[in-house]
Amino acid sequence: MTESLNEFSFIESIRQRSAKSAALEIGIGDDTAGWRITEDSLLLTTVDMLMEGVHFTIPPASAFQVGYKVMGVNLSDIAAMAGRPQTAVVSIATPKKYGSKFLQELQQGMQQQAENFGTIIIGGDTNIWEGPLVVSVTLMGVASEKGVVKRSGAQTGDWICCTGHLGGSLLGKHLDVTPRINEALLLHQKYNLHAMIDISDGLVGDLFHILEESHKGAELIAENIPISKAASSNDDGQTSLEHAMSDREDFELLFTLSAEQGELLVSKQPLDVLVSHIGYVTEELDYKLQIGKKRHVQLKKQGWEHSFSSPCGISKHDNY
Amino acid sequence: MTESLNEFSFIESIRQRSAKSAALEIGIGDDTAGWRITEDSLLLTTVDMLMEGVHFTIPPASAFQVGYKVMGVNLSDIAAMAGRPQTAVVSIATPKKYGSKFLQELQQGMQQQAENFGTIIIGGDTNIWEGPLVVSVTLMGVASEKGVVKRSGAQTGDWICCTGHLGGSLLGKHLDVTPRINEALLLHQKYNLHAMIDISDGLVGDLFHILEESHKGAELIAENIPISKAASSNDDGQTSLEHAMSDREDFELLFTLSAEQGELLVSKQPLDVLVSHIGYVTEELDYKLQIGKKRHVQLKKQGWEHSFSSPCGISKHDNY
Repeated sequence: MTESLNEFSFIESIRQRSAKSAALEIGIGDDTAGWRITEDSLLLTTVDMLMEGVHFTIPPASAFQVGYKVMGVNLSDIAAMAGRPQTAVVSIATPKKYGSKFLQELQQGMQQQAENFGTIIIGGDTNIWEGPLVVSVTLMGVASEKGVVKRSGAQTGDWICCTGHLGGSLLGKHLDVTPRINEALLLHQKYNLHAMIDISDGLVGDLFHILEESHKGAELIAENIPISKAASSNDDGQTSLEHAMSDREDFELLFTLSAEQGELLVSKQPLDVLVSHIGYVTEELDYKLQIGKKRHVQLKKQGWEHSFSSPCGISKHDNY
Repeated sequence: MTESLNEFSFIESIRQRSAKSAALEIGIGDDTAGWRITEDSLLLTTVDMLMEGVHFTIPPASAFQVGYKVMGVNLSDIAAMAGRPQTAVVSIATPKKYGSKFLQELQQGMQQQAENFGTIIIGGDTNIWEGPLVVSVTLMGVASEKGVVKRSGAQTGDWICCTGHLGGSLLGKHLDVTPRINEALLLHQKYNLHAMIDISDGLVGDLFHILEESHKGAELIAENIPISKAASSNDDGQTSLEHAMSDREDFELLFTLSAEQGELLVSKQPLDVLVSHIGYVTEELDYKLQIGKKRHVQLKKQGWEHSFSSPCGISKHDNY
């Protein structure tokens, strides 16, 4: 959506200007920024804004669910770097008609989600107006002792893996986000992850983010892609595989690691959620989906993006 | 405005929960939060969200001016702590009808203001919708070697001082914010400031913030209050003194220091802008304005707040 406004020059300008600082170790183009505070401390920062009528509608979403979601979406970006979340500040524009009980429930949703992951809300700015609800959360965290996992580290021959089951998020999960903070920290501690992202723009869309930053291609294996029940219960003409590959807001982890490490991981299944091996990173800048033994489909970032349809028009969760 | 929604329990809940962490050295109730990252490093964080139709209208405000303002408002909160700004993240909901040129100019305004004070925009989230323009900026900085200046340190007998000239911001200055970063750093380095805040809610409103946090009273001297030309050129029935005391968004510094230090400062005038001695901190929890030699007027926080009128209804800039 942003690209239709030719936002490229805007982002590129920010990217170029911010690149001048040596302290900015992770600039625009990853899930969070990384700012070197001291030798031992890399500050991770991310911001996501959710808007009524775009990312959610009220009802069916409750105030609590909106708060829970917006905090979860931001925590998921810290998870994508295998970081530890610490603090958050929130800014809110809330419609006057919703009243104080609504605002309290919104805050309780944010607080609950934050506390689930040891995160403290340290400040904010609450405004009342006649417009729709807008909530922006800025989340700050730190890299673990082992550093962060960026999008740019995928290597040829890597296994592509993901957590959980994909697709159909709009049937409920998109309001009940469980950021994979603990899973990311455990994976990062026990395995050598090469690249990681959270699946917010859809499996294929987010895979392309990794491939673009890593300058690699990929081959996905259709039969290995873990499809959620929600993706299968849709009757909108799309197959459940299509849903699993393109639906936004799964908030699962998508990552790559060596084949050797991948085999270990998938056989061991150390997480509470499933880890699936869904494809390979290739040297050739080609993007394929293997269906059965004989059929190959070309993957296109735009193609999969366009196949996505959403009753409330969920927009992208880019950090620019 | 927020108080009409009985927001107290919301803020109090956040204040209580956040108080549990030892790393949170400055919690809710000051211009920024202060989070202890390492022994030497206190991270200052503040967020302010500006909304079309509330904090500005387009026109007369241009996209550049809105960007310039929202970054300036946040920098002013760092100035209020005598901190050094470093990085910012921005989230934007922009109306589709405004197009890409508007978005670029908005970004240029933010960028220009940020660069004026060595601040780098390190990330963001841009969204397009059918609603009004909403821009939220989170600004991060660090305390200087001498620590921060909080609201809570005012002492009995202190001089109350301010920078610049006050009032009439709506006639133009509110769109051309010059945050007093450099002034605050210089004052903090050369003098022992006891308490400080930026004047965003009006002189009296913000003085009350200092007095409440410091548990003190005050006596202001009417003839010493520096009145801006803009405050005098209003013909809305309010006196220019009333404008200077109650108009929002001056973004000057209001601070207290010992009488001895105050005399030194005011005689030396070390800043490019005027420093005025406008009153005294008192032990007694009483709030007076002395007019001439014989007349005293009782100052009331609410009274002065209500006397404020604004064509675009500028709302408060609280960090909760």
